Amino acid sequence: MKIAIAGSGALGCGFGYLLQKNGEDVTLLDNWQDHIEAISTNGLHITVNGKEDNQKMTICKPDELKEEMDAIFVFTKSMGLKPMMKKIAHVIGANTKVICLLNGLGHLKTLEAYVEKKNIIMGTTVWTAGIDAPGVTHFKGQGPVELQNADPNEKEAALEIVKVLKSSGLYGVYSEDVNYTTWRKACINGTMNALCALLDSTIDKVFASSTIDSMLTGIVSEFSAVAKLQDDITLDVDETVAYLKDVASSVGAHYPSMHQDLANNRPTEIDFLNGAVAEASNRLGIQAPICQKITDLIHAKEDILGISALTN
Amino acid sequence: MKIAIAGSGALGCGFGYLLQKNGEDVTLLDNWQDHIEAISTNGLHITVNGKEDNQKMTICKPDELKEEMDAIFVFTKSMGLKPMMKKIAHVIGANTKVICLLNGLGHLKTLEAYVEKKNIIMGTTVWTAGIDAPGVTHFKGQGPVELQNADPNEKEAALEIVKVLKSSGLYGVYSEDVNYTTWRKACINGTMNALCALLDSTIDKVFASSTIDSMLTGIVSEFSAVAKLQDDITLDVDETVAYLKDVASSVGAHYPSMHQDLANNRPTEIDFLNGAVAEASNRLGIQAPICQKITDLIHAKEDILGISALTN
Repeated sequence: MKIAIAGSGALGCGFGYLLQKNGEDVTLLDNWQDHIEAISTNGLHITVNGKEDNQKMTICKPDELKEEMDAIFVFTKSMGLKPMMKKIAHVIGANTKVICLLNGLGHLKTLEAYVEKKNIIMGTTVWTAGIDAPGVTHFKGQGPVELQNADPNEKEAALEIVKVLKSSGLYGVYSEDVNYTTWRKACINGTMNALCALLDSTIDKVFASSTIDSMLTGIVSEFSAVAKLQDDITLDVDETVAYLKDVASSVGAHYPSMHQDLANNRPTEIDFLNGAVAEASNRLGIQAPICQKITDLIHAKEDILGISALTN
Repeated sequence: MKIAIAGSGALGCGFGYLLQKNGEDVTLLDNWQDHIEAISTNGLHITVNGKEDNQKMTICKPDELKEEMDAIFVFTKSMGLKPMMKKIAHVIGANTKVICLLNGLGHLKTLEAYVEKKNIIMGTTVWTAGIDAPGVTHFKGQGPVELQNADPNEKEAALEIVKVLKSSGLYGVYSEDVNYTTWRKACINGTMNALCALLDSTIDKVFASSTIDSMLTGIVSEFSAVAKLQDDITLDVDETVAYLKDVASSVGAHYPSMHQDLANNRPTEIDFLNGAVAEASNRLGIQAPICQKITDLIHAKEDILGISALTN
């Protein structure tokens, strides 16, 4: 299967590596020149669950890829999805499947501007990864990768990708409810990510604060209202808050990614979490003042730190 | 006039000093042992608008004062008002005037538990002050001190205090609308104080952020709704937001007091600003989700920093 990885950061490299080892014809796409040069010259140096390897891989910039693909995994940052889709539109054919495992809300709508719905497969993953240097990455976890066809009639297409991910060791799983999982993950990121970034603190300390119940309930109630009205997804507020506390207690003294974004002067994905809920609530004629204000505060923090919006 | 200063921090010392220089019989009250000893031993060392002086002054702990007072100026932190009132209840007689110039909301209600309304005089001041060491303070400004009787029939009492403040150089002014001024000041503290504390930034940077309009409008709208329903005070949202921006531009690269509280591991006055609006909104049957969440976030920040609530 001819597969492109659109956005070959740490997670993209991990997926591309395991797919290629499984015999797929993989091309990594990325915009980072140093990373491209390092992988072209020395191969990808990758550590998967502690096991190091070096793998020769094809990598180029998105607009340099000429051939139509069978499948494309998008692995950009949320705000990079639209710019990436513009750059790879020419390799998306009538049957090219586009698989989206990004965190955050609203990506299906972005994809539909570039891909027929029947070819879109949405999903979530709990693999984690990091970049140690250009061309040097690590990849950790046991999956799963949950997938579901965006078009209800296209289950077969999703099952085919699941099969490929399974045989590659990426632990693909067919899900009947990817949208629910996506919303639940968004609740995690919209609470612990946003609060830790705002309060400049680790998850354990934020969740030990005296006002955590009020903060979680306030945010989750707004996520829940929009999930119901927009996607007919039921997120029980009390159950979700209990789940978040459970996740937090297992993660502990850790700075989540949005905090790391600010610490490293990168724009956050807040517009695709609390910001997406605030924006949707306006569209739906309800209100999400807390999500709006958290989005405002995070953007103010970006501005104060001199971080400019991503435009690649 | 026998006057006690209940809470002789920087501002209290400034008032006490100028009142005593004007011939009033002043006693400073405070709980800080080092400060009491320094002033008792060496006198108060004070710099008023750049001019240094040393003044012998009477100072003791609140419960050590035995005589009934003619007037008491309260100068505690907001959360210190109630504990202070308990400690000085025994020197409040049938005609003792209690003058409250504290920032924040809800103080009249606290005072009414200890003082007859006819004896309460509410006010605001723009004098600023600081403590450099125990017994060493500075005091700056040109006033004014706006005063108004809490009981509409007691204008004469307020005018008498205004007169004393005028002759002392404290620039007393009778106000027909102290409650409006108090709400307007609370809007300043509930926006720039709270936002700078949360975003760990100076006023100029917070007000230069791309989301400042949304943040200000959101907070001020909730203050405005409660001011109207609770006190029949009209705070026009657009005018107030314009006023806040104006104040911010004149203050510039400055960390406001709530930021300094957190930086010095002191509890903030958030419960008497955004917290008071959230609490009142519940009582009034309306909603103030933004003020509630900002209060939650500031308390979470206090908890993360290991700051415990003031109980003196």
